[in-house]
Amino acid sequence: MDRKWNLMSFAVVLGLSEVAILILFGIFVDYGWDGTPVSLRGQFLHDSHGNPNYRGPGTSAQELSQSRVSIPDSYSMFQDVHVMIFIGFGFLMTFMRRYGYGGVGFNFILASLVTQWSILMRGFFEMPENHYRIRLDMNKIIAAEFSAGTILISLGVVLGKLSPVQYVIMVVVETVLAMVNEYIVLYLYGAVDVGGTITIHLFGAYFGLALARTIHRREWSTDMFNDLKYGTHYNDLFSMCGTVFLFMFWPSFNAALAVGDSRYRAIFNTYLAISSSVIGGFVTCWIVKNGKFTMDIVQNGTLSGGVIVGSVCTLYLYPWGSILCGLMAGVISSLGFHYVTPFLDRRWGIHDTCGVHNLHAMPALFGTFISAIVAACATPEVYGSSYFLLFPNFAPSNTSQDYFALKQIYPDLLPGSGRTPTGQAANQLASLITTIGIGLIGGVLTGAVSLR
Amino acid sequence: MDRKWNLMSFAVVLGLSEVAILILFGIFVDYGWDGTPVSLRGQFLHDSHGNPNYRGPGTSAQELSQSRVSIPDSYSMFQDVHVMIFIGFGFLMTFMRRYGYGGVGFNFILASLVTQWSILMRGFFEMPENHYRIRLDMNKIIAAEFSAGTILISLGVVLGKLSPVQYVIMVVVETVLAMVNEYIVLYLYGAVDVGGTITIHLFGAYFGLALARTIHRREWSTDMFNDLKYGTHYNDLFSMCGTVFLFMFWPSFNAALAVGDSRYRAIFNTYLAISSSVIGGFVTCWIVKNGKFTMDIVQNGTLSGGVIVGSVCTLYLYPWGSILCGLMAGVISSLGFHYVTPFLDRRWGIHDTCGVHNLHAMPALFGTFISAIVAACATPEVYGSSYFLLFPNFAPSNTSQDYFALKQIYPDLLPGSGRTPTGQAANQLASLITTIGIGLIGGVLTGAVSLR
Amino acid sequence: MDRKWNLMSFAVVLGLSEVAILILFGIFVDYGWDGTPVSLRGQFLHDSHGNPNYRGPGTSAQELSQSRVSIPDSYSMFQDVHVMIFIGFGFLMTFMRRYGYGGVGFNFILASLVTQWSILMRGFFEMPENHYRIRLDMNKIIAAEFSAGTILISLGVVLGKLSPVQYVIMVVVETVLAMVNEYIVLYLYGAVDVGGTITIHLFGAYFGLALARTIHRREWSTDMFNDLKYGTHYNDLFSMCGTVFLFMFWPSFNAALAVGDSRYRAIFNTYLAISSSVIGGFVTCWIVKNGKFTMDIVQNGTLSGGVIVGSVCTLYLYPWGSILCGLMAGVISSLGFHYVTPFLDRRWGIHDTCGVHNLHAMPALFGTFISAIVAACATPEVYGSSYFLLFPNFAPSNTSQDYFALKQIYPDLLPGSGRTPTGQAANQLASLITTIGIGLIGGVLTGAVSLR
Repeated sequence: MDRKWNLMSFAVVLGLSEVAILILFGIFVDYGWDGTPVSLRGQFLHDSHGNPNYRGPGTSAQELSQSRVSIPDSYSMFQDVHVMIFIGFGFLMTFMRRYGYGGVGFNFILASLVTQWSILMRGFFEMPENHYRIRLDMNKIIAAEFSAGTILISLGVVLGKLSPVQYVIMVVVETVLAMVNEYIVLYLYGAVDVGGTITIHLFGAYFGLALARTIHRREWSTDMFNDLKYGTHYNDLFSMCGTVFLFMFWPSFNAALAVGDSRYRAIFNTYLAISSSVIGGFVTCWIVKNGKFTMDIVQNGTLSGGVIVGSVCTLYLYPWGSILCGLMAGVISSLGFHYVTPFLDRRWGIHDTCGVHNLHAMPALFGTFISAIVAACATPEVYGSSYFLLFPNFAPSNTSQDYFALKQIYPDLLPGSGRTPTGQAANQLASLITTIGIGLIGGVLTGAVSLR
Repeated sequence: MDRKWNLMSFAVVLGLSEVAILILFGIFVDYGWDGTPVSLRGQFLHDSHGNPNYRGPGTSAQELSQSRVSIPDSYSMFQDVHVMIFIGFGFLMTFMRRYGYGGVGFNFILASLVTQWSILMRGFFEMPENHYRIRLDMNKIIAAEFSAGTILISLGVVLGKLSPVQYVIMVVVETVLAMVNEYIVLYLYGAVDVGGTITIHLFGAYFGLALARTIHRREWSTDMFNDLKYGTHYNDLFSMCGTVFLFMFWPSFNAALAVGDSRYRAIFNTYLAISSSVIGGFVTCWIVKNGKFTMDIVQNGTLSGGVIVGSVCTLYLYPWGSILCGLMAGVISSLGFHYVTPFLDRRWGIHDTCGVHNLHAMPALFGTFISAIVAACATPEVYGSSYFLLFPNFAPSNTSQDYFALKQIYPDLLPGSGRTPTGQAANQLASLITTIGIGLIGGVLTGAVSLR
Repeated sequence: MDRKWNLMSFAVVLGLSEVAILILFGIFVDYGWDGTPVSLRGQFLHDSHGNPNYRGPGTSAQELSQSRVSIPDSYSMFQDVHVMIFIGFGFLMTFMRRYGYGGVGFNFILASLVTQWSILMRGFFEMPENHYRIRLDMNKIIAAEFSAGTILISLGVVLGKLSPVQYVIMVVVETVLAMVNEYIVLYLYGAVDVGGTITIHLFGAYFGLALARTIHRREWSTDMFNDLKYGTHYNDLFSMCGTVFLFMFWPSFNAALAVGDSRYRAIFNTYLAISSSVIGGFVTCWIVKNGKFTMDIVQNGTLSGGVIVGSVCTLYLYPWGSILCGLMAGVISSLGFHYVTPFLDRRWGIHDTCGVHNLHAMPALFGTFISAIVAACATPEVYGSSYFLLFPNFAPSNTSQDYFALKQIYPDLLPGSGRTPTGQAANQLASLITTIGIGLIGGVLTGAVSLR
């Protein structure tokens, strides 16, 4: 009976989660602007809750027929991100023979669960702006994929250490905490973080590391455990397939939610940063391994360039700045794999299955500092008409004289809080501390629950 | 001599088919509106055959310079569908060691042949509207990929059972029948079926099953035959790669030919349905297999959500409805694999190599019923300005008073047949019966020819 | 010490190359029009160097806010090309067990290096038009991927024959020569070559073949060397994965830099040509191998259709012409693999690891001749308003009467050189000779340097 329950608990918990999601979708979720027939879009215009999309009753017929988050603009990037989550993350884990097929399978189930669950959770935070409904649009499902990314990063730390039912519980809890953290960082602090360096990589990594520390068992550090996990030539090729898809589509990840000219910068900066981190990662691996490549180091080095520019990619980092960031990330991350991972395991009792500390935590830490520096250097001369679009808090408050003067030039300008560039830098750092804090506490608590 | 002919017949038949296609393309096929220089597009406007694209001689220079099926709107979805057909279907079949590489190879040849052949066959039905020419545009090549999908579904049933030359004959014959069925279902019955639940999944599955029944041989049911077909860990990973690409790009498949707001609903509904069918499929598999995943069941369960909403995805299924459909499809399909496939084999003499009955036939059957129900519930209040766009037959005929009243509101309204929602439901069911009928008869006849 | 240097030289050379790139990016490279905030785009309008994008100071606010190479138009094709370079080329090489993982790895490093390096090199040629800056836009990174393609074609010839540091040197030198050749062919000769039949396939192939000839060693021709290189069933499947991605996205490769109606023709022509070359390749392989497929022939045959129409795809090749070209390419290429490759090896001492002579050199040779023929047949009646867009040299010079007469009809017409269709054909052939010349000399010199 007990063994039967252990076996079946996974199916029961997973099935019940899905039924709960079904019920909550029935109560709260509806199609958004783009999925609503043109003649019925008027419902979105009766708004008294400060909806930023509100255009007032004077909206013309032509405006009604236009898309807000259009398929040509966002669909192909959405699909790229989708591939990163399901193929990229999934096959990245196949370098370990023991977890190969299971890794892909669990990646598949858990990501499917998170995307649905996070549409609800994120939607709850945005409900006051949306007539207390959750409205589906392209940005919502892109953001849902981002949440799946957060959770899969944590999964990378604890892969092979939890029971199936524990994975499901971890996923459900972490999604809630990730949404709380995202709300604080993006809405309360107004941090610049379009590619999720802070809300995705930093959060996911520290949550996972804290969880791994809490549930640590001595046998994971033995050679037997770790030797078994490495696979053959074919495992490496499957893993390379995941790595390369992540590499290729990272510009889409960082640019998917950016708009206007900053979206192009996000593409160019990420493209250059991740190409350079390939070089940085391979060179460092070659040196520390005395003229050889090893799969795990290569993967870490090559991808870290996408992580480090996640916050800063929409800003004026300049092409050379992207290359420098990428190169640094590749070097740091490869060194981290060679020196820091074994150290964390031996000294701190943190066993990190896929090396998440190197690929996500360290580059994200550096990337957040860089975002603070670049934000602190922002001037209206450099950013021109995008100054208040990229940093909406820099706009003066609507009680000030300046606001009305600026409104003459930029008719669409929304009032901000008159924040200075240094103030923005401080908020980037506050986001960093908050994210690490919530991540660590969340990970420890989830671990404590799992151990019972 | 005879052995030599047997070997070479495949090359001869395939080569001759391609030469025939070359000649027919030379006689009939030309570039369409978008591939024609702006100053020469006037030729498309001299029209006296009821061409729906006809805009009359008053067309302005600006209208001439605009695309009709533009690259930003349709190209990335076309490529997603392309990946589903060539990578998705191809690698899905690699879970069987025996057919692994051959499966991918035959998939590649046959899909290439069908896309070209179906451009001709579908084009013939549309020639009267196009000055007796076949005109290439993006929608034509998307539809060609859909036809390849139909044929590859049938291939899934009979994989490993025909000789190479028999595959080519099957493909050539089935494409013609699929086009006849599509013409009846979409043009004569006016069924709602943008994702091909009826014309692709139902037709392809029943054609293949009837063919398999006709050519059945006892030795296929032996354990020896079936045990041999399963592969290693690596085969499973390749197969998973195909599965995940099908999973990811299914929203593109269902939305590729939809337009306007219904296209967004197609994306959201398919995205939710297929994510839920992953959960439904895995849970069911875990239960019936006593706490294990098996590749074949997982594949069936996970993908069935895309099949079940193929007809209904553009309609107001609502997000919760999509999740419910997907969950049902995942459960039905996994149960089908565990219980129905062996039953079909033993009792009915239908050996179904890839389990097409579960992944395509059953979810498509349910999906068609659901489409009838949802269509029967359609009201102008819910669909607003999209009511007559989604259901063109609901428009009054141009002899009625209503038509001219409505024309005041919707200047682009084309006359319909005044069909009621219940009438639409009846036509969905008629399409189901017709499709199964043509599929079964076609499969039996093709099988009878193959046996000679 | 010496062994240590040999080992480390790769890391040193690669690292120094990246540092040099970083410095040059710092001096020269900046964001282009689309990546610049709207209010700062005025800087691009102060132009006195004949910039073709120059619109004058009368540019309206609306024109300033519009994208020039927009994301909806170009991003998804860029990503397709990106996948071809990193997954397609990378995994194509995995059919050889010995170079499998290393092939993918080196492909990854070298392509990342080339994309950055070629942005600089190509940018230098275009600097006079751009205020002596290199400006990033979407077309620049698509062109950078094309350059990576050129180099990876050469890599296919010499895979397994150079030391790591020699690969890096080859890549750096070849990129410079490829840019010089591209400048001569596209700007001086004004050749039509949007899909790179001449500048990419012909150049890359002959450079690689000349290099292979120069460094030839007798042991490469032994059976031992060549037998070892073939892999298992799984290697074939990985390789098939690369092949199919190249096959699927080739229409994006040929259409990525085309504009207007010619872009649609590029898609349709490439789609039909490559589907037909699949059939042509399989049929020929089946015949010459007596009823079997072999991986290497299949790969060559299937992809050659994309190569042969690279120059001609934007022109009026007509759908039947594309099928005919593809079919021919598939047959030629498969025959080449069976008969020509061993001959080149035995008689000429050219060992061609991946069969680049068949897949790239021969179809590109034929394709260039076809482009000359099709260009010679061009008439204003067939091309209409696209006549002077596709062949800008056909426009009369601005000293002639005709120019002002035509300018009445086409206000945007730029002055050309009054070239005739036959003149264009001559320039296509001149491009062929120049490209082969520079490729051969460059390959021999690079080889001579490598041997020291």
